[in-house]
Amino acid sequence: MAVSIALRLEVEDLYSEYCAALDEERYEDWAALFTEACLYRIVPRDNHDRGLPLAVMHCESRLMLQDRVVAIRETAYYAPRYLRHIVSGIRVDAAPDGGIGGLANYLVLQTLREQPTTLFNAGRYRDVIVREDGKLRFRERLCIFDSIVVPNSLIVPL
Amino acid sequence: MAVSIALRLEVEDLYSEYCAALDEERYEDWAALFTEACLYRIVPRDNHDRGLPLAVMHCESRLMLQDRVVAIRETAYYAPRYLRHIVSGIRVDAAPDGGIGGLANYLVLQTLREQPTTLFNAGRYRDVIVREDGKLRFRERLCIFDSIVVPNSLIVPL
Amino acid sequence: MAVSIALRLEVEDLYSEYCAALDEERYEDWAALFTEACLYRIVPRDNHDRGLPLAVMHCESRLMLQDRVVAIRETAYYAPRYLRHIVSGIRVDAAPDGGIGGLANYLVLQTLREQPTTLFNAGRYRDVIVREDGKLRFRERLCIFDSIVVPNSLIVPL
Repeated sequence: MAVSIALRLEVEDLYSEYCAALDEERYEDWAALFTEACLYRIVPRDNHDRGLPLAVMHCESRLMLQDRVVAIRETAYYAPRYLRHIVSGIRVDAAPDGGIGGLANYLVLQTLREQPTTLFNAGRYRDVIVREDGKLRFRERLCIFDSIVVPNSLIVPL
Repeated sequence: MAVSIALRLEVEDLYSEYCAALDEERYEDWAALFTEACLYRIVPRDNHDRGLPLAVMHCESRLMLQDRVVAIRETAYYAPRYLRHIVSGIRVDAAPDGGIGGLANYLVLQTLREQPTTLFNAGRYRDVIVREDGKLRFRERLCIFDSIVVPNSLIVPL
Repeated sequence: MAVSIALRLEVEDLYSEYCAALDEERYEDWAALFTEACLYRIVPRDNHDRGLPLAVMHCESRLMLQDRVVAIRETAYYAPRYLRHIVSGIRVDAAPDGGIGGLANYLVLQTLREQPTTLFNAGRYRDVIVREDGKLRFRERLCIFDSIVVPNSLIVPL
């Protein structure tokens, strides 16, 4: 079911702010883009397609996302790097329960200090978005990634 | 000549569905995005710029696209892989003959099983789009790719 | 401050034309997208974040951009290559002084003759855009790139 042009562009803005928050290491701002009760999962595509439950990251509330942010801030052995999100093919549809369904392809680039930029991770976002206090927020974001080879451990969200 | 905002976003949706159909291996859905008489060509940029006719893939009807789909489904020696399309810089214009002109840059990523994601192919789409039975379809899609080095043979469309 | 949907899409068109002009080596068209007095800078993210003034490229007028174009055209030892721009996460806001603020992530791919396509450079655009003679133009474009490793010298703009 199609949504209005204004809502569609507002969802695109939400996606852009999500990427900018992560790329600029504003992790607290990133967590604030989710509803209090939410689902954030990073899953390999193989597992997802077979209905297997394994997730590389699994958070069920904004509090758990904020815990994750603290972990990022305190992980001392995590080599400094820049991430850069590229998102494409955003699709927005009305969901049956009053939410908004979102789909997009993503590519995350990584730059370690004094190294060239490399491909870090690519896949697909599957989202449920709701309006809360006038702002759009993620009630669900599923990051389904293509390669099971994740260079270095996955500490920062995708 | 500018087109309406609604039409422009509808073209963006067509592009997104094209990418999703290929990325999710819904090749029959991909073929259904073209008109019965159509032109689908994959050409190296060098050749295109010099007006040379050589194409890596050349189909003149939806039937030929469907034949190609059968070939993909039956190619046993094609190692399993995931593709992921990133599209950017979409431009939509009214074409003189009542069609719609579309332009975009694309990047296709490839992930072989248990391998990291790599760059597969990049280039430019040049399209002619028409409305048929209320739906937008490609009457022409030209994929003009930058590198003549195509890793593995090009079996799946771009 | 939000801008109208029409203006937002017009800015997206400006970004697309910017990329197409560079990718198609229409450098004169690229320079024409800036106002006569303008600022075009390419800076490493490290320096930018620390407020350091160093820039890899720095032009303060369209004339300087045109000089740069002449330099590109005359650089004989610059191996032929194709560039391909991917832009994502465009955000458009009204600026306090009547201009338009633009933000986006970018990825530039490079293809040397008979070589595979590779990542060339990625980063963020920060823009100030104004309307002049009915057309949108860049009064400022800052290209803030992530990796200090720039393969080959940076001759063509980002």
